Amino acid sequence: MRIEEGETRSPPVEEDDTSPGVVETRYFRFAERESDRLLLDSGRRFGPVTVAFETYGRLNRDASNAVLVCHALSGDAHAAGYRDRKGNDPGWWNDAIGPGKAFDTDRYFVICSNVIGGCRGTTGPSTIDPETDQAYGLDFPVVTIGDMVEVQKRLLGYLGIEKLLAVAGGSMGGMQAIEWALRYPDASRAHIVIASTARLSPQSIAFNTVGRSAILSDSDFLAGRYYDSTIPYRGLSLARMIGHITYLSDESMETKFGRRLQEGENFSYDFKSEFQVESYLNYQGSKFVERFDANTYLYVTKAMDYFDVARYYGGGSLEKAMERVKSRVLLLSFSSDWLFPTAQSRDVVKALSRLRKDVTWVDIPSSYGHDAFLLEMETESEIIRAFLSATESWEAAP
Amino acid sequence: MRIEEGETRSPPVEEDDTSPGVVETRYFRFAERESDRLLLDSGRRFGPVTVAFETYGRLNRDASNAVLVCHALSGDAHAAGYRDRKGNDPGWWNDAIGPGKAFDTDRYFVICSNVIGGCRGTTGPSTIDPETDQAYGLDFPVVTIGDMVEVQKRLLGYLGIEKLLAVAGGSMGGMQAIEWALRYPDASRAHIVIASTARLSPQSIAFNTVGRSAILSDSDFLAGRYYDSTIPYRGLSLARMIGHITYLSDESMETKFGRRLQEGENFSYDFKSEFQVESYLNYQGSKFVERFDANTYLYVTKAMDYFDVARYYGGGSLEKAMERVKSRVLLLSFSSDWLFPTAQSRDVVKALSRLRKDVTWVDIPSSYGHDAFLLEMETESEIIRAFLSATESWEAAP
Repeated sequence: MRIEEGETRSPPVEEDDTSPGVVETRYFRFAERESDRLLLDSGRRFGPVTVAFETYGRLNRDASNAVLVCHALSGDAHAAGYRDRKGNDPGWWNDAIGPGKAFDTDRYFVICSNVIGGCRGTTGPSTIDPETDQAYGLDFPVVTIGDMVEVQKRLLGYLGIEKLLAVAGGSMGGMQAIEWALRYPDASRAHIVIASTARLSPQSIAFNTVGRSAILSDSDFLAGRYYDSTIPYRGLSLARMIGHITYLSDESMETKFGRRLQEGENFSYDFKSEFQVESYLNYQGSKFVERFDANTYLYVTKAMDYFDVARYYGGGSLEKAMERVKSRVLLLSFSSDWLFPTAQSRDVVKALSRLRKDVTWVDIPSSYGHDAFLLEMETESEIIRAFLSATESWEAAP
Repeated sequence: MRIEEGETRSPPVEEDDTSPGVVETRYFRFAERESDRLLLDSGRRFGPVTVAFETYGRLNRDASNAVLVCHALSGDAHAAGYRDRKGNDPGWWNDAIGPGKAFDTDRYFVICSNVIGGCRGTTGPSTIDPETDQAYGLDFPVVTIGDMVEVQKRLLGYLGIEKLLAVAGGSMGGMQAIEWALRYPDASRAHIVIASTARLSPQSIAFNTVGRSAILSDSDFLAGRYYDSTIPYRGLSLARMIGHITYLSDESMETKFGRRLQEGENFSYDFKSEFQVESYLNYQGSKFVERFDANTYLYVTKAMDYFDVARYYGGGSLEKAMERVKSRVLLLSFSSDWLFPTAQSRDVVKALSRLRKDVTWVDIPSSYGHDAFLLEMETESEIIRAFLSATESWEAAP
């Protein structure tokens, strides 16, 4: 079973008519020629880039029903459907994308791609650098959320989509949705920002810092050139454990684990994993290592730390930055999310409201913490479905 | 300058008449004979034990003015005064202990000792095991907050103190104060519990787990036998960084660091320490390693995880456990402390109140997070001073 951030789901049924069915990841390659290189926010030029992507549903004749879905830190292009007819490997947002679901594939053409810097098919630090025939490692350029959007923009060009119906994403995916609204205000009629923020708090940067330090200080990290030897699994696993603490709320941890022991009722008086919460974190840490690259963890968390649209587009003012918005914006936050807290969504809503932009905000009561964005699907779906429907009949103010 | 948990203080003046002056750590050794061994909560018998302790002020004739102060995770016996006449190395609670201060050494005889399992003079995993002539390492027995109290009890016997005026402590020190109230209800007339809890939440256990995992997975850890080689500084430093995030509040991090960069205004587009909050954490991590033992970090955090007086004394019921209390109890919590949140103090207060015990609780508004217990000294001092005064004239109900 696939896990996006912290939570398992019920296994898929073999026949599931609310699913886009069996899907394959496809690949698009660009910037092969020097003149076609990506210009990154850092000022570096970069290419070639391969983008892993999937699509669900059908693009309509006037190409007006496309929705771009953006993934979070550990996600990838496989957002929905299964890998085979047995229902193996459901996409990370399979609950949200499919016939009749929030992103209804009977109505919309949904696209999801792996971010640049990633490790799930799109060019990143684990990709072979054609100039050296070695993996890039730390020679890969530091990328931003803006750079991720640039790559998605190229993909949309390739798919023949000039204007999206919506860009949607949770967590880091929500950052990409915000970035889209500001970088390409005309490229989408709506933006859906879930459990996200216009910039991380210093506390969230601090958690990312410790995660990166765990990787960087792992003796197997070898300055990022570990691909031919032991991977820095201890550092990456620690980073993931820290992440998981921040994805859950104090309350959901209390409900899920309390102070219960993994085995028996007596303390073991040693340093083995003993409380259920310990086992859970250790398990999540060790599982993550199997499917994720440590260098990508560095790049993607750094991109999140850098993300700050007030700084980039508003000279420090969020309101000034938000003047660029021309689309309808929906924000969803969750009451117990302390990683991307309600107050951060409120800041965005305030700025948009003062500018009389078309903004809708729902702070959903939930005890699940940041993970809520993957778990409160029923509530989210209802809101998203209505918002997308309304967007279809909405015309942007001139 | 000494740092207890997360915060620096202004340097001491050379002449400071509110200080106990220059103090030396003394040592008391017990349980040398087999028959005199400590019986630990784990069931193991252990000895010999050396206890590092300091005292400030004078014991009065009837030995009724003694106050035991208990230290937190990274503290030690040096709670007050300086190491030399120049005012070097002030004690970790120098702001609270001294003539005219909260624990007024003109009136009280204040004692502080390093906990068993510690690394600052009291027997712990870095102590040489007389049976092997090697440091104990992980052969040191896992100790509990109760075991820490047992060692303090022996010390008090040695000092000729049968009944304390008060036991006081913050954070893990507060756990010891609670433990004293339940394990030896007749041994003190009052207990002062600051920024503490009757048991850690699973979230706090989770943070401790990750800290321990960082140490245990450090390739220099060598199963705890690192004393003759490189110490596991990366693991211990990571553990400390995680700790520091939990000692500050989101708000205090915002005030202290915001998203400010350490140097200049432009991103460096690499993985060096860049945001001020990153530099702070890296600095705290690397400084801690100079003065603290990684094995002790394992033992002391484990003792905190195990602490659960409802389980130990009440068959799961906090109220049942609190029936044992015969003393006056003062609890102080801090509004922005999310590591030992207000609600946990409230639980203790509720249990004591329902039992009609003599309990006073002040939830102090503060933005400093858990660190507040070392920073809000003015407010705390006023409350503690009044509470101790009242305790002097208070007689326990029969």
